[in-house]
Amino acid sequence: MFKPYFRDGGGPPPLSVVVERAARLEETDLLGIVWHGRYAGYLEDGREAFGRRYGLSYLEFRAAGAVLPIRILHLEYLAPLKYLEAFAVEATLHYNEAARLDMEYKIVNQKGETVTRGYSVQMMVGLDGVPLLEAPPLYLNFQKRWREGLL
Amino acid sequence: MFKPYFRDGGGPPPLSVVVERAARLEETDLLGIVWHGRYAGYLEDGREAFGRRYGLSYLEFRAAGAVLPIRILHLEYLAPLKYLEAFAVEATLHYNEAARLDMEYKIVNQKGETVTRGYSVQMMVGLDGVPLLEAPPLYLNFQKRWREGLL
Amino acid sequence: MFKPYFRDGGGPPPLSVVVERAARLEETDLLGIVWHGRYAGYLEDGREAFGRRYGLSYLEFRAAGAVLPIRILHLEYLAPLKYLEAFAVEATLHYNEAARLDMEYKIVNQKGETVTRGYSVQMMVGLDGVPLLEAPPLYLNFQKRWREGLL
Amino acid sequence: MFKPYFRDGGGPPPLSVVVERAARLEETDLLGIVWHGRYAGYLEDGREAFGRRYGLSYLEFRAAGAVLPIRILHLEYLAPLKYLEAFAVEATLHYNEAARLDMEYKIVNQKGETVTRGYSVQMMVGLDGVPLLEAPPLYLNFQKRWREGLL
Repeated sequence: MFKPYFRDGGGPPPLSVVVERAARLEETDLLGIVWHGRYAGYLEDGREAFGRRYGLSYLEFRAAGAVLPIRILHLEYLAPLKYLEAFAVEATLHYNEAARLDMEYKIVNQKGETVTRGYSVQMMVGLDGVPLLEAPPLYLNFQKRWREGLL
Repeated sequence: MFKPYFRDGGGPPPLSVVVERAARLEETDLLGIVWHGRYAGYLEDGREAFGRRYGLSYLEFRAAGAVLPIRILHLEYLAPLKYLEAFAVEATLHYNEAARLDMEYKIVNQKGETVTRGYSVQMMVGLDGVPLLEAPPLYLNFQKRWREGLL
Repeated sequence: MFKPYFRDGGGPPPLSVVVERAARLEETDLLGIVWHGRYAGYLEDGREAFGRRYGLSYLEFRAAGAVLPIRILHLEYLAPLKYLEAFAVEATLHYNEAARLDMEYKIVNQKGETVTRGYSVQMMVGLDGVPLLEAPPLYLNFQKRWREGLL
Repeated sequence: MFKPYFRDGGGPPPLSVVVERAARLEETDLLGIVWHGRYAGYLEDGREAFGRRYGLSYLEFRAAGAVLPIRILHLEYLAPLKYLEAFAVEATLHYNEAARLDMEYKIVNQKGETVTRGYSVQMMVGLDGVPLLEAPPLYLNFQKRWREGLL
């Protein structure tokens, strides 16, 4: 139904994590709905849950010598979220051989409707600020298990 | 140098407004740089300055019977902004005959480097929530003056 | 150990609700700890959980003809919260015959240490903006059950 | 008219800095006014302007071996601020011989009405996290010039 953001050419199927939340009062604006800029935090909630689930959190990457700055953030708003409305954030990692993370997101309301879609691209960068040509062993091991269907 | 986000096929040249700011402490995160999600507010600062400059603010649109929800927000982060760093947000409206606003953004640091680029698409929607097929007279008049080179 | 913020002279004992959270990346600042201004949202998380638990939410009050603007917010920071650190927010309502809500807060970390304390005072105001001399029936009924020990 | 937050017993008169702002869309909530928690950022805008004016910024203090965590934040809301409403934040430092900063704040709207008042207390802490018994020379020199009426 939706045009995919990333192509999965030959890699293993994507991995997803879902986290549940509800819209907080401070996230709304004068229109009575969640302000569009707050969704960056919702996607981050999904991305961080993914990192915790698969041992790829910010702190684990940093211990492995890499940080993961966001290079691209893309959001499509299909319907608003209201104050107190419950929703699920699904963060899905797509396989990529490069030293980057291609993540796709879907925010789904309680009726099962996708109210927001988006993606982010993060590049792996060394602690000295130099982009990495190859992912650290932490991630290469994760990818190996992914390819072997062990995740 | 950068690939354009919007094509200006036949319409008048785009209109820009620039607003100056500095990164606030609360906009930084534990990495010591501005958290990527805060840039939605920076773009909004540019977009709102544009609205005030051309009589197209949120309040003026609402008085004309329309709201302008963000449908797409896209951000590309080329370099970080640090605490207290001064920067300029340039918001540029591209001509479009449809009932929508295609706006492009550029954040430029004090060395003149573009540190962030992005765009937003807003659809014009009536106060009853139904998308408008045609822009309100407020905007049609603005477009007429734009085409006539009066802006 | 701590000096109380409110005196409970003659009323029933206070009522508390606890909500659990963890510090999100976007809530930290360049010092690597949660920015002090984010705690207003943490207290609100506790206050809103209290409202949902006792049928006194913002929406229920509004349906009863009243809003509850914050008049005083007071925060004491005893120790910082770090990125990902889990904590509990305890919101405690103290009995008061006036048309106001006196709420006290405690944020407790996983070691059981109180890292933040505070209180808020909210006045009940009609939808026309005029302060209420008496709480709406919604709240009077709640207070009656409270005094009767039914909560 | 207002009860003072700090007593200036014997020290030189307080020092003030004023910074001007306007309420941004993202700072409003579903009530159509600025969300009460955003004011912590407004006070910080005043406090930071004070620091820049008197050479006492966060970065200058850190270079002098101290950080200044907020220990107490107190806010009294007298009237709301609306979207786009312009206001001034006045930050006033009161003299104190201890290794702490006692700052008072006033937010004044365009009619000259004080819409918010508050104060903060910051303790001076060494970079090792140990509270300082005496302020660093940076601050002692500032206080000397203050007492001598040179500021």
